[in-house]
Parts: sequence; C-alpha cells; structure tokens
Amino acid sequence: MKNKKIKLGMIGGGHGAFIGIVHRVAAYMGEEYDLVGGVFDADYQQSKDFAEQLELDPSRVYENLDVLVEKETQRPAADRMQVLVIVTPNFLHHSMAKKLIMANFHVICEKPVTTTLAEASELEELVQKHGVVFSLTHTYTGYPMVRQMRTMIQEGVIGEIQKVDAQYYQGWINPVIHEKEKRATVWRLDPAKAGISCCMGDIGVHAFNLLEYTTGLEVKRLLSDINTLYADNPLDVDGSVLLRLNNDTRGIVRASQIATAEENNIQLAVYGRKGGLKWEQENPNYLYYLKENEPMRVLKPGNAYNSDFALQSTKIAPGHPEGLFDAMGNIYKGTAQAIRGESYVAGAFPTIRDGVRGMNFIEKVVASSRQGNTWVDF
Amino acid sequence: MKNKKIKLGMIGGGHGAFIGIVHRVAAYMGEEYDLVGGVFDADYQQSKDFAEQLELDPSRVYENLDVLVEKETQRPAADRMQVLVIVTPNFLHHSMAKKLIMANFHVICEKPVTTTLAEASELEELVQKHGVVFSLTHTYTGYPMVRQMRTMIQEGVIGEIQKVDAQYYQGWINPVIHEKEKRATVWRLDPAKAGISCCMGDIGVHAFNLLEYTTGLEVKRLLSDINTLYADNPLDVDGSVLLRLNNDTRGIVRASQIATAEENNIQLAVYGRKGGLKWEQENPNYLYYLKENEPMRVLKPGNAYNSDFALQSTKIAPGHPEGLFDAMGNIYKGTAQAIRGESYVAGAFPTIRDGVRGMNFIEKVVASSRQGNTWVDF
Amino acid sequence: MKNKKIKLGMIGGGHGAFIGIVHRVAAYMGEEYDLVGGVFDADYQQSKDFAEQLELDPSRVYENLDVLVEKETQRPAADRMQVLVIVTPNFLHHSMAKKLIMANFHVICEKPVTTTLAEASELEELVQKHGVVFSLTHTYTGYPMVRQMRTMIQEGVIGEIQKVDAQYYQGWINPVIHEKEKRATVWRLDPAKAGISCCMGDIGVHAFNLLEYTTGLEVKRLLSDINTLYADNPLDVDGSVLLRLNNDTRGIVRASQIATAEENNIQLAVYGRKGGLKWEQENPNYLYYLKENEPMRVLKPGNAYNSDFALQSTKIAPGHPEGLFDAMGNIYKGTAQAIRGESYVAGAFPTIRDGVRGMNFIEKVVASSRQGNTWVDF
Amino acid sequence: MKNKKIKLGMIGGGHGAFIGIVHRVAAYMGEEYDLVGGVFDADYQQSKDFAEQLELDPSRVYENLDVLVEKETQRPAADRMQVLVIVTPNFLHHSMAKKLIMANFHVICEKPVTTTLAEASELEELVQKHGVVFSLTHTYTGYPMVRQMRTMIQEGVIGEIQKVDAQYYQGWINPVIHEKEKRATVWRLDPAKAGISCCMGDIGVHAFNLLEYTTGLEVKRLLSDINTLYADNPLDVDGSVLLRLNNDTRGIVRASQIATAEENNIQLAVYGRKGGLKWEQENPNYLYYLKENEPMRVLKPGNAYNSDFALQSTKIAPGHPEGLFDAMGNIYKGTAQAIRGESYVAGAFPTIRDGVRGMNFIEKVVASSRQGNTWVDF
Repeated sequence: MKNKKIKLGMIGGGHGAFIGIVHRVAAYMGEEYDLVGGVFDADYQQSKDFAEQLELDPSRVYENLDVLVEKETQRPAADRMQVLVIVTPNFLHHSMAKKLIMANFHVICEKPVTTTLAEASELEELVQKHGVVFSLTHTYTGYPMVRQMRTMIQEGVIGEIQKVDAQYYQGWINPVIHEKEKRATVWRLDPAKAGISCCMGDIGVHAFNLLEYTTGLEVKRLLSDINTLYADNPLDVDGSVLLRLNNDTRGIVRASQIATAEENNIQLAVYGRKGGLKWEQENPNYLYYLKENEPMRVLKPGNAYNSDFALQSTKIAPGHPEGLFDAMGNIYKGTAQAIRGESYVAGAFPTIRDGVRGMNFIEKVVASSRQGNTWVDF
Repeated sequence: MKNKKIKLGMIGGGHGAFIGIVHRVAAYMGEEYDLVGGVFDADYQQSKDFAEQLELDPSRVYENLDVLVEKETQRPAADRMQVLVIVTPNFLHHSMAKKLIMANFHVICEKPVTTTLAEASELEELVQKHGVVFSLTHTYTGYPMVRQMRTMIQEGVIGEIQKVDAQYYQGWINPVIHEKEKRATVWRLDPAKAGISCCMGDIGVHAFNLLEYTTGLEVKRLLSDINTLYADNPLDVDGSVLLRLNNDTRGIVRASQIATAEENNIQLAVYGRKGGLKWEQENPNYLYYLKENEPMRVLKPGNAYNSDFALQSTKIAPGHPEGLFDAMGNIYKGTAQAIRGESYVAGAFPTIRDGVRGMNFIEKVVASSRQGNTWVDF
Repeated sequence: MKNKKIKLGMIGGGHGAFIGIVHRVAAYMGEEYDLVGGVFDADYQQSKDFAEQLELDPSRVYENLDVLVEKETQRPAADRMQVLVIVTPNFLHHSMAKKLIMANFHVICEKPVTTTLAEASELEELVQKHGVVFSLTHTYTGYPMVRQMRTMIQEGVIGEIQKVDAQYYQGWINPVIHEKEKRATVWRLDPAKAGISCCMGDIGVHAFNLLEYTTGLEVKRLLSDINTLYADNPLDVDGSVLLRLNNDTRGIVRASQIATAEENNIQLAVYGRKGGLKWEQENPNYLYYLKENEPMRVLKPGNAYNSDFALQSTKIAPGHPEGLFDAMGNIYKGTAQAIRGESYVAGAFPTIRDGVRGMNFIEKVVASSRQGNTWVDF
Repeated sequence: MKNKKIKLGMIGGGHGAFIGIVHRVAAYMGEEYDLVGGVFDADYQQSKDFAEQLELDPSRVYENLDVLVEKETQRPAADRMQVLVIVTPNFLHHSMAKKLIMANFHVICEKPVTTTLAEASELEELVQKHGVVFSLTHTYTGYPMVRQMRTMIQEGVIGEIQKVDAQYYQGWINPVIHEKEKRATVWRLDPAKAGISCCMGDIGVHAFNLLEYTTGLEVKRLLSDINTLYADNPLDVDGSVLLRLNNDTRGIVRASQIATAEENNIQLAVYGRKGGLKWEQENPNYLYYLKENEPMRVLKPGNAYNSDFALQSTKIAPGHPEGLFDAMGNIYKGTAQAIRGESYVAGAFPTIRDGVRGMNFIEKVVASSRQGNTWVDF
C-alpha cells in the first residue's frame, strides 16, 4: 500500500465543540487521516482530558501552539504532524495560521479565514512562499450536487451566464436582536470578536463563495445595503448586495439572520443562455436543471450521468441520502451503550429479536403467496 | 475519563466494499469505537494488504474467523476485541455469528440476520444464553425523524393506530430481469445464495421492520402476493402483503425491485384516531404530522420540540442536512490529495485564495453600504 | 359561426350544492353550453327560486323529471334541451338516467353511475340502443397531466407495464366512525343510500378508474381486504385490493377514509420496462417521468413537449397553475360586491389606487437605475 | 331574489385572445355577471362574428367604444351595461378607461393600468369624482392563500415586519433577446407600445403589488439596478430593487425575464418578529408559516383554520386543487364534441362503459373480501 495516512493535529475543538466533531468525522470518513494530537483547549488540563477520551498519545497534547510547533518540528519527518486543523474562535485564525505556515505545516482552517482582508492577504503571501497546502472549509462546496453544478457550468451546459442569485437566510438572531442586553451576550455582534460584519461575514460570504465556486465568475463591483436593525447595534444582521461579475453579468447576494425561524435556507440559481441550474441546501441531493421547451430535470448523486468530480464526491449508492451514514452511526452509538452496560432507550439499535421477526416475515410472505394468497398466522 | 473506546473487529468489508466503508464511518462517527483488526477478505493476503492501508496492527489481521476467535480470546480482557462486525455475504451470517456468540463476543451484523427463520431463532437462543449484545443494522431505524416518529406514537400523539402503509420501491432489477442469461449473474436471484426470497428478503423486510419499529405494533397474520415476473425465475422481485397487526389493525407492506428507475423510495404512513405521521427516506429530515382541522406540521431534526431520543440521534445543528458531514469529508479528501502532492480537480477544496476573496467581499460590502449604497470596485 | 351552444338542463344542484357549482362552472368554461333550465330541487318552489337567481327562463323550471321530459320533448328540436346533468343523490342516478336516455336525451351523470352493477349494465344497453352520449364525470381524468400520462403510455414511452399502484387516502370519516350515533348521521354509511360500499364505492373506484384510464389495461381478477373498522358498521371505510390486469400484470388499489387528516391524497404510479410515470392530485400540474440512468423529468402543462390531447386540455399559459382562473374569479366576485354597493373586505379586488402605486413603482425603478443606482423617494 | 346579475360588457378579448377567456370564465364562475355585449375586436365584422359565437344579442355589439357609450347610455338603467372590462393592448387602457369613467360606467381593467404614472393619477382623480368602481386585475391577489397571508399579517400573527423579499422570475425573453432582429418582433421591447419598462412594468410590478398587498406596508424609497442586457436594447429585461418601506423596513423586489426556462416563478417571503410566511405561485395552495421552536406549518385552502376572507375566496372542498374545475371543464368539452357529433380523442370523457366497469369493481371488491379474501374474476 503506497499511501500512509496523513498525520493530523487539531487546534481547538475540544469538549462539546460541535465544530470539532464535524472536522474529526470528516477526517475519519475517507480513512486518509490519523488524528495524533493537538491543542484542544486553552486550558491545558481540559485539553489533556479530552485527548485521553479520544485515546490519543498524551505526549502529543501540548500546552499551546508554540510548544506544538517546537516539539512536532523536532520529530522525524515520517512521524511529524503534517497538517493542523484550526477550529478556534475567528480572531485567532490569523496568528495561528501564520505561525503554522511559517513552520511549514499544511493548514486546514475554518472560515472566515481571518477578520480582515489585510490579514488574509498576508496569509496568502506566506502560503505561496512556503508552498504549503491551505484548505479553507467552505463546507457547502463539498456537496456532490454543488460540484456537479460547477462542472456542468464549466462544460458550457447552460451557456454564457446572464443572471445569478444566491441567498442565505437564517433567523437565529431574531430572539436576541431586539434587546440590547441580549445582544451583548452574542459574540458575533461584538466587533472586537467578529470583525466588521456579522451577517455578511458569517453567512453572506458563504453565498458569495458558492456563487463564485459554481459559476467560475468573479465579482468585479458591488453595491450593498446592509442593515443593523437598531442604530445602537454596530454590526449588520441582514443585507442585499448587487453585483457586477465578469462581462458585466448581474448578480445578487442576499443574506439575513432576521429571516425569522429560517434555519439554513441557502439557495443558488444560475441562468445562462442555454439553461438554468438551481440548488438548495435543505435538499442537497437535488440539482434542478431547466432547459427551454424541455421538462425540468432533477439530477441526483451517484448516478452515472454525473461528472467524475461529482461522482468521486459521493460515498453512497444512488437513492440513499448522504445522511445514511449518520443513521448507521446512531445504531453504532446505541450498540456501544449496550456493550458498555449503560442504559439506553429501547429502539436505540435493532437486536436479534428484530432479526427473528424479519426472517419470520420473509418466510410467511413466501408461504402465503405459495398457498394461493391465503392468510398465514405469524 | 471513564470510558475507553470499544475495541472493534470486522469480518468482511475489505477492498472497495461499500458496506465496509459505511460501517467503519459509522463506528468512527461517535468516537466510541477503535477498529483494531479482523478478517477483511477471504484471501489472507488481500486482507493483510487492506489492513495495512488502514494502518492496523498486522498481528490482529487473521487468516479466518476461527483463528481470530482463538487468538483474540487469548488476549487480556482489556485489550481484546469486544465486538465483531459481520459484513460478509448473507449465507455466512449465521455460522459466523454463532461462532462469535458462543465465544462471548458481542456482534454487529448486517441484515438479513440469516437466510432462514430457524437459523435466526437459534441465534436468538444463543444470544440470550451468552448474554451478549447483538446489533442488527436495520439502518433506517437510525434516522432521527424515524426515532421521533416512534416516540410520538409511543406517547400517544396520534392515538390508537387504525391504518399503516409501508412502501419500499426500487427499480434496479429491471435491467437484468427480462433475460435469463442476465438473471443468472445476479446472486440475489439465486436461491442458493439469497435464500427463499429476493425482493421481500432484501427490502420488504426493511419496510416491515420500519413499520413495527415506529408503531410498536406486531404483525399477527399476513396474506401476500409476490411476483417473480417470469415462471423460470425462482425468486420474487415484487410483492404486496396485507397485514393484520394487534387488535386486528390493518396494514400493508409493498415492495418492488421492478419499479423502474426508482432508487430507494421508502415511504411510511401511520394513521391513528388523533392524527397521522408520514416519513420518506428521500428527504429523511422531514417528519409530516397531520392533524384534523390544523395545518400540517413539518418536524425537522435538532429542534427542541423533538423527543430526547430523536435529539440524541442528531449530530448536527438544526437546518443542516446530515449530509453536511459528507460535504466536509469531501473537502478533507481533496486536501489530502493536495498534501500528498497527488493531482486533484480544481475546486476539490477551497484555498487561501478563496479566503482572501471572501474577506474582500465582506470589507467591500460594508464599505458600499457605509458610503450610502454606492458601487465599489472589487 | 357554425356551432350553436349546446342547450343544457340540470337535475339537482340547487341552493348551496357544491357539486352543482362545479358542473355549472365547468359548463361555462368552454363557452359551449347554455344552461336553460331543469329541476334544481325536489321542492318546486325552491327550484324556482334558485332558477330566478340564475336568471333562467321560469317556464323551463319543472316540477319533476317526468314533466321536464314531457315538456322539453314537445319543444322544437332547435330549442330543446339536448343534454341533462344529473347531480342528485346516488340512488336516483339509475332511474333518472334511464328515463332520460329512453327519451333520447344525452346525459352527463355524476359518479357513481348507479348503486349496482346490474343497473349500470342496463343503462349501458339503453345508451347503445338509443345512441345518446353518456358522460360520467370521473373528474380526475380531465387533468392535463393525467391525459399526458395516458398518451405517453399509449405511445409506448415506458414500454410494457409491469407494475401499477393507485392510492386514494382521505381522513374525513375518522371524526364520525368511532361512535354509532355519529355514524347514523352519515348517508354514505347507510347501505340503503350508498349501496354495498362506502370507501370503495366513493373513492376506491376513482383510483381504479384512473389506473385503467392511464394504462389502458383492464382488471381481470382481484382479491380484496376491506375494513369496516367496527363490526356493527355495515360498510367499508378502508381497503386494499390486489389486482391482476392484462398479461397477469400486478397492480394494487389502496383506498381509505380513515387515513386521519388526509384530504384527497390521490397518487398513481405506473412502471414499465422502459420507465415509470407518477402523478399526485395535490400537485396536479406535475407529471414525473423516471428513466433509468437519466435524471427524473418533471413535465408541466401547456408546454410544447406535451401531447396534443394534453395541450388541448390546458386553458392556461405554461407556468401558471390552473387555479389562476379561480384567482381571477375571486377578483370578479369582490368587484361585483363593490358594484352592488355591498360591503366587502378591503383587498377583495385591486383598485385604481393600486394602479397608481404600480405605475409609480415602475417609473421610480427606471429613474433610480438611470441615475446610477441611487435612492429615489416614492 | 334580491340580486340581479350584473350586466357586463367587454372591450377587446375576441377570437383566440387568451386574456378574454380568462376574464369571461372568471365572470361566469361566481354566477354574478351576465355578459351582454361589447367591442370585441377593432374590426367590426370580426367583433360581430365573435359575438355570434358567444350567442350574444347582436344589437349590443358596437363599432367602437364611442358608439357603445352612446347607445348603452340611452338604454333604461335596469338594462344598461354596468361594468366594462378592458382587455385591449396596454397603450389603449388610459383613453378607454377615461371615456368610460366619465360616462359613469364601472371599469374592470387589465394591468398595467396605464403606461405612465401621470395617466394613472388622472384616472384616479376621475374615479373619485365619478364615484365608480375601478377594479384592476392584479390576479395573484385573488389566490386564497395570498389572502390568508394578508389576513394573518393584519392580525399580527408574525408581529412587526422586519424583512420582505419578493421574486418574479421568467425566462421567456431569452430566445429573442440575443438577436436584434428577433427583438424587433416583440412589442414589450418597443418603448412606443410598452412604455418605459419591459420587465419591471410587466412583472416586477406584480411582485411589488403582492408585497404591498400582503404586508400592508408601503414602499417609501427605492434603489434599483435594471438591466437591458444589450446596449442597443432600450428596455429592461431584468432587475433588482432595494426597498425602504414604512419604519425603514428593508425589502427587495427581484424580477427577470432572462431567468432561462423559468415559467412564472413568483415567490414571496415576509419575516416578522414573531414568525415568517412564505408563498409560491407554482403551488398556490400552500402557505408556509414559520415560527421559532415550532415545526413549520403548511396551511391549505378551505380549512376552517383560515380567515373568513380566505375561506370566501375558495370555491372547492379542502384537499382539491382549484384546478379541479378545469379538469371538470375538460370533461364537459369532450362531451360537447360528442354531442355535436364531432370527432374527439378516446378518453376525452368517461362513458357508461366506465360506469359499468366501476360498478363491477365495487361489487367484486366487496365479494372478494366477503369470501375471505380470495381471488374473484372480473
């Protein structure tokens, strides 16, 4: 076997951090990474406790990033962490990424990459200088049908683009935005922590990224109208952005955190001279392809009509939602509880009883049909 | 830390086996299992090669199940494989599970549990006698909204059940069923390998299981009409089953592999005196709750209105489909290719360039709005 | 102009009868019928009052059907009622239709045609003998996409049919079925009025009709399981029917009136060797066409890719739901209230004020854009 | 009977004009109007031929509007046309409406009301002076669920509004916009006929009207970005409009005729402090009601939970789409062909044969079930 697994370290993402779980599961999925250590928490003891839970080698859990860089660099190349995942609060991304790149580590970084453009540009120069890989986890670009959309546009399926429209509507900030005291508890509304933007920086940028990713076009000019809702709220919670892309193509990005009770309503529509393509995150397995004088087509992952890129981005047989892995994961979780003798909800996993009933069902079904479609007791 | 990870072995699931990947990813997901070895392939060398790829300890990759049982049993308890996953062809499930249970291993087994009811019943007795955990991976019962449906019915939300209807329609057998030579290439149509049923044994039993799982009712009598389509085809590829459940409640299970071009169209509808609940696998994040004189409600995972059981079965924030993990996994996959210096498709992961553009977008958006909604060059 | 409008009479359908409205509107729609009179109510005065409301000639409102037949027959042929619509209770259909056919009137009859097969067969013989047109209003066969489905199957688009599944699920009987006193108030549960069946006679037969209509196949044998839910309830409220159609093709009809809180959930799926077609009444403008190895196609009315038959069955431009007529009808209704000086809800129709605002919008939009995308007061 | 039908005249809408059919059917639907005459075509003979087809009194078909006004005014009040429908080309709306209002006729006018704001304002003054009813057919405001949305917002169900978004995307102009010669054939792209705007004037104004209609808010300022796509095309075919409504509430109107292959994709989303409401024209029977921490609700017409206004705007029983009338209308159309002895497609209407088969189905279904669920020949 040629390829060894890639040695991975993590900065942040300890106890209970959802984002840490997402990254570790994603790393596990392809069976290509081996998480070997990191700095999981600012509190060293917490970090070590968490690493023990993951059964990591305690000698590779470090006080802080400086120590990590120093110690890992001293290890033989074959054994050294190759790539570090940064899942710390946004304002730490820049300094940590800079340190790692300068020490020649590859970096996987949560978005936003930094809190200012100047910082991001500095990182870009360093990445080029040090020749490392820098992966920014704009997760939505990983969906098979987003990749299929990109490929179809690249291949000219919808012709020259004449209109693009991207939306990211959430409602989560509504319960806190209307009272100043509540607002004060939300770090995303604090310029010191979130930078110059809340809504656009957090989700507008996703819509922007998806739009450029799928179309291959670049934004050249923009005119925006962002909304803080209250004069004493410093950061935007809603906004619309008019765009000019290559060749003066018109586009629009709409984002909101006051679209009350919306969860993560991302929608993307791209129209070209020969057709249109639409995608929505709520049903990420469907890509809608519109063509004049023809019925709308609904493309789904895993089918041979997709591009190689889209097919390679699918782990699952056609017709199963990607969530199937998660369903299976839940059964493993329940089984683990049983193995450990912990209490668990009945129904947490199917047992041999279910197996017996299933076999009984199959045999009785065959028997009834063979007997001329008559009733059979179970 | 109280809990050590559970030591897991795998039988089958080597090179390229989709089902092996599903089980390993599911085991990774909860960060509660540690895959330590197994028998991945009937061919020992293949098995060892595959284990090397996963960077497993070669001393725990065994020639066959007998050797595995012997050697693992000799290890100290704390180090021993605790649970074995069986993902071999169906006809091997019984003998392997039997061997493992008798040696006091816990077992996670792919469905169908065996090829006959008698075998399944034998396993059930052994499971009880040896007190081991036996987990049968009826995956669909792991979906959060299937679990929510079960809980709501248990809690009496829809009242006494008066009608149930479960469907599993696929079309995959259509391209091979019409010619005898093609049929001969399909192991599921060979009674020696598949047992007495193809369609009912493979997918009808899923619909049956979902129906009993969610309702808590048990099938008491049935009348079936299965269809082999051709007289010289020994096994069913389609069928309908009329059911009598507890209290003479009527139900129906419909399954087909000749529902041309259907992928995995599973639908479940349960109607009680006080309301109805419906679920479809194609959009597994939606649970439809019907109530007289009220608008239909659409429940989604991760929201506080769900039962504890459903909430514990969700890894993701509300509004994201479970497939988000997979999207992130694709970005890790592309990043791995880049780190290894392999070729990869542009767009396989976002880079620092995307980060710079994103920060540029955010800063320009804020600038345009601050300047009174005027155009800003990018 | 060659064609005079067809002179239409109506039996039943007076004051407040929903079914009368449906038939009159349907007759108006094509501008080919002229309602001239009838027997709208068993009570003669009521009948006359209702006719006055419709501004019909009072001399053509009759005491009963015998008088109508006698008087209309005496009129000159060019002036005589040509076709009578029967929208009376089911048990009257047979005797009334018989009388009309024997007097050589054409008949449009609500379903069910009669309450027994013998009566229906008798009518069939009379229709043939007298050479009149007998139109039975199985309304669902009038949907453009149901007609498109029929044509596509006729043309062999999905090849030889191998599986059909038709469903009609309602929940309306749930609120009355569980108490004997309530049941007694429902004429459909009274064998004297409804005949031998409630659920199958009312809605199962629609599913059956749609299935035969679209596929062109005929049911040859059936096995049914119908359910009265209570032993002292004489008529079925739920049932499943296994079918054998031509060439031993398998089918299933499922119908229920205890599918709690379902409204009119009609679904039809037909699978052939070359593809599948699916239609649902809730979204009657979509026809789903499944084909192996191709994206699902969604056909919609009014587009040139449809058959002539489907196109001729569409009154509306592509992309508008047929309900557009009804929306416009509501505006006419509000306008009528205003013209008559009756009170009406604000918003019942748009006024000149809306016209002024609209023109203002258009002019301001153009102005803002011309001024370089700046804010313009409204 | 108190109410006589309202006497209606029509200007335009003759031979083959779709818009004429829509208005006549809408007028028929409520059984409150009686079409008595008009000026159906600029060519008098054509107009008379068309009126004969509708079997109207020839003495009330006039050479032109002046004659109509003169002659109708001379009739006794009880017999006179009360309201005139204007369905002529846009540029004639103003002069015709002016003439009619000044002669004290009520007016129903197709949109756009005029081609300039000044003309519209003039009409508004005249309407007030003469005290006539002026109904502008912004048809979308007639949908039951649009009216339900309006009522819910009025009643404060979603609280103070904080974000509105309205879209109207079509693609019909794509096939002609890219070549100058083709463009020249489209009257909507000719400023002399269409006024100062194509896309905004035709469909943007619908989105604007729906937004004001449902929310009760008024646009106070706007900033627009409209697009002609080609420099030598004088009128817009696409555009986005940023809005400030009452209390500085932000809104957006998006409209396009180059959203390739879109038909009439109208979407409206309104978010308030207490919830959100969404509606789409493609499925006009669904109103989506979002509320924090609760499942999304889907409201449908005809159910008792709707407002009186919405209920009065529904002609059909719950669960049937409004298109049911049209389906029935198709059956009447086929029946008319048969009555006239014209050729018609088999399947154009169900016959007595279908009635016999239906009764046979019902009787056999009951028999099979009574015989213990055994097969019965048909």
